[in-house]
Amino acid sequence: MLEEIKERVCKANLELVSSGLVVYTWGNVSEATPDRRYMVIKPSGVDYAVMQPEHMVVVDIQTGKAVEGDYRPSSDTPTHLELYRQFPQVGGITHTHSVNAVAFAQAGRDIPALGTTHADYFYGGIPCTRLLTQHEVEQAYEINTGRVIVETFRQRNIDPMAIPGVVVCNHGPFSWGKDGATSVYHAVVMEKVAEMAIKTLMLNPESALPQYVLDKHYYRKHGPNAYYGQTHADE
Amino acid sequence: MLEEIKERVCKANLELVSSGLVVYTWGNVSEATPDRRYMVIKPSGVDYAVMQPEHMVVVDIQTGKAVEGDYRPSSDTPTHLELYRQFPQVGGITHTHSVNAVAFAQAGRDIPALGTTHADYFYGGIPCTRLLTQHEVEQAYEINTGRVIVETFRQRNIDPMAIPGVVVCNHGPFSWGKDGATSVYHAVVMEKVAEMAIKTLMLNPESALPQYVLDKHYYRKHGPNAYYGQTHADE
Amino acid sequence: MLEEIKERVCKANLELVSSGLVVYTWGNVSEATPDRRYMVIKPSGVDYAVMQPEHMVVVDIQTGKAVEGDYRPSSDTPTHLELYRQFPQVGGITHTHSVNAVAFAQAGRDIPALGTTHADYFYGGIPCTRLLTQHEVEQAYEINTGRVIVETFRQRNIDPMAIPGVVVCNHGPFSWGKDGATSVYHAVVMEKVAEMAIKTLMLNPESALPQYVLDKHYYRKHGPNAYYGQTHADE
Amino acid sequence: MLEEIKERVCKANLELVSSGLVVYTWGNVSEATPDRRYMVIKPSGVDYAVMQPEHMVVVDIQTGKAVEGDYRPSSDTPTHLELYRQFPQVGGITHTHSVNAVAFAQAGRDIPALGTTHADYFYGGIPCTRLLTQHEVEQAYEINTGRVIVETFRQRNIDPMAIPGVVVCNHGPFSWGKDGATSVYHAVVMEKVAEMAIKTLMLNPESALPQYVLDKHYYRKHGPNAYYGQTHADE
Repeated sequence: MLEEIKERVCKANLELVSSGLVVYTWGNVSEATPDRRYMVIKPSGVDYAVMQPEHMVVVDIQTGKAVEGDYRPSSDTPTHLELYRQFPQVGGITHTHSVNAVAFAQAGRDIPALGTTHADYFYGGIPCTRLLTQHEVEQAYEINTGRVIVETFRQRNIDPMAIPGVVVCNHGPFSWGKDGATSVYHAVVMEKVAEMAIKTLMLNPESALPQYVLDKHYYRKHGPNAYYGQTHADE
Repeated sequence: MLEEIKERVCKANLELVSSGLVVYTWGNVSEATPDRRYMVIKPSGVDYAVMQPEHMVVVDIQTGKAVEGDYRPSSDTPTHLELYRQFPQVGGITHTHSVNAVAFAQAGRDIPALGTTHADYFYGGIPCTRLLTQHEVEQAYEINTGRVIVETFRQRNIDPMAIPGVVVCNHGPFSWGKDGATSVYHAVVMEKVAEMAIKTLMLNPESALPQYVLDKHYYRKHGPNAYYGQTHADE
Repeated sequence: MLEEIKERVCKANLELVSSGLVVYTWGNVSEATPDRRYMVIKPSGVDYAVMQPEHMVVVDIQTGKAVEGDYRPSSDTPTHLELYRQFPQVGGITHTHSVNAVAFAQAGRDIPALGTTHADYFYGGIPCTRLLTQHEVEQAYEINTGRVIVETFRQRNIDPMAIPGVVVCNHGPFSWGKDGATSVYHAVVMEKVAEMAIKTLMLNPESALPQYVLDKHYYRKHGPNAYYGQTHADE
Repeated sequence: MLEEIKERVCKANLELVSSGLVVYTWGNVSEATPDRRYMVIKPSGVDYAVMQPEHMVVVDIQTGKAVEGDYRPSSDTPTHLELYRQFPQVGGITHTHSVNAVAFAQAGRDIPALGTTHADYFYGGIPCTRLLTQHEVEQAYEINTGRVIVETFRQRNIDPMAIPGVVVCNHGPFSWGKDGATSVYHAVVMEKVAEMAIKTLMLNPESALPQYVLDKHYYRKHGPNAYYGQTHADE
């Protein structure tokens, strides 16, 4: 079942490689079914060079059980599941260890919104979560990674569709969107704006973006008054 | 009409991708007709992988109306138009979000002239505009982006053909030249000298270039006494 | 003899080039035979473009003598031999001059464990050796390079299989693993985490990783309770 | 005449592009004839994409006159000529605007010898020249560029064959060797060690290399006691 989604998820995972975001088996992309019963995700530790759609694993979003596929799903599966459960508009999720976004995660800093490249896709700084406690790490690490992401967005009152990404403290970036391909797109943009932000902060540690420029650029591309691209679609 | 210019503009836009300056649909190149009645520009949000000359949009430079083409023109069209109206020698314009030039834009700093690579193409520091006001952003963002570029060159008394580029504060680089291809060339050079400048400032924050070296290198390649290349042409 | 290992070692050396870790003839990979009598290593100074399995050199691990091959072995041969003699679980060794790992070597600093990318492969900071003394350099430079690596791991009480790499002060990285291919894999990871660490330290010089995250990520991939990938294999 | 050298010089110039050191028409490589009467050099401003051996220009080293070729020689020709006249062992010269070496040139700093990658090819720091005076720039810029390089090596008592490269203040790198191909090789190495040095200085501004390590690595590859590679040749 779900052959079309498996093809899309496989293709999205391979795009992580061609875009230079991952090496070896690092990184993973998933996509939820339209009814949000299942998620299709990359298998754990399978080489991108031989990856085929039939290697994708179908997981029940509520129970967390693999219901189809010959392989074990990505070890980050519980994190993906928690995000699908708590963020009902999210249709696809990407996790990478891309260098510049990881630098912010390891530094424990938000990726600040410093310019219009950022504002075109992320309506404000990309948050960095708090560090998980020892108990959270030892008891249920991957699901607690999902929980701390959700906690971050709720406590800071951020709409996950307006800022479709996060850096998990000392770990790395997760991004999402309406489907798997969009989540990869946001992963690429996050890496690029992280690279820009590092260089900007080197040139001027006091750099900042006024709220009205953020508003303008974000709503030029998103929402009912968008006028970028060929239609008024949100993406 | 203008099939030849459409081909050139399409090719120049694709060169942005092959030179590594843009990803996805970011960036745009335009070229004016010799009589300066029309500008040919990239459509908004169309993927470079499928872009063809027939997708280019012809826009009336005075009225700002698209007069040919099935697509909406780039959302930055009003910025390009304003530059063609105010800078009568400019025949082609490029806008990108290349990382190192954006870093200067986000830091609100000019790209300083620190060496001969810079001086070969830009006769002095590449200016960073002031930040647009909230009113300018909300009322007519794209045309005001063009206006603040023109204001910057007039207030600082800079000839736009001697320094064929700018970074717009918190946004990114625009460059120009006698045609679209030359504006892309200047975009590539601006990104390269921005990268050199960041690394130079890390090694020595006090770096500077004497005026007489700037004069020598710039006039070795430009003006009646140029002696670089195979002819005495300006470019 | 040992044709299969020669093919593997040749392939592993070529992977150094395709992964971008080395240019020209820089870098070398070796692999020990299962009985640990011989090591197969790249010849010295032979161009990667023409390198073939039959160019590999077989060296006796105890005597250090080349026992097969028309070429002289890599000039770093005595370093490799010393590591095979002292680290009995090491089956393959890689040496490169990759830029970011070399930066730590030249700075005389450990590559600190700052995040989970690092912790997935290296159970703690990657040590930087002390500088060799003038006597050590002049008398038997290459073997003393091996000895100072061994000394570093013994004095700091580090298991070389838990932290399969080192940076030699003012020189560069060595990495190892169960075979040649794994040692190349670890060389690629070391370069990547070194790049991440430099950028992290620029954003936050006080960055650090709690021990319990290090434990979790390392043991997620290694040892009897590993649950990453498709089997419980250590690698 | 000199068809073989033209082919070699053309190939060496194209190698500048494939190694990523230059874009567009930046950079140039020359080679002297064995009798040191002529130098063969790239034409000025010709696109690498169409460059052929027959475009190379033959210049008389003493008179500076082009004696064969349909094109004007590189505008840096007088610099090359001066180096051939004053450095009798130099058989090939390369000039680029590679980013990291230019950063040192623009910062007015030597590229310090910080590790063995550097010491394998350059027996000490790569010097940065003084800035040319206004008079030197205005009267005979290119030949004075050659003269200030020679002055730098004589005043500091450096053998140009032991440190086969220099950064010209506010300008960029020149490198040389026994032939054109070797000068390109040294240009690639200089760019790599410059990149390593910038990152090293960010991690530890006090980094330095003891003289005895410099001696060891340099003489491992050069001179009568060299033992790197397959022969005792100097290169």
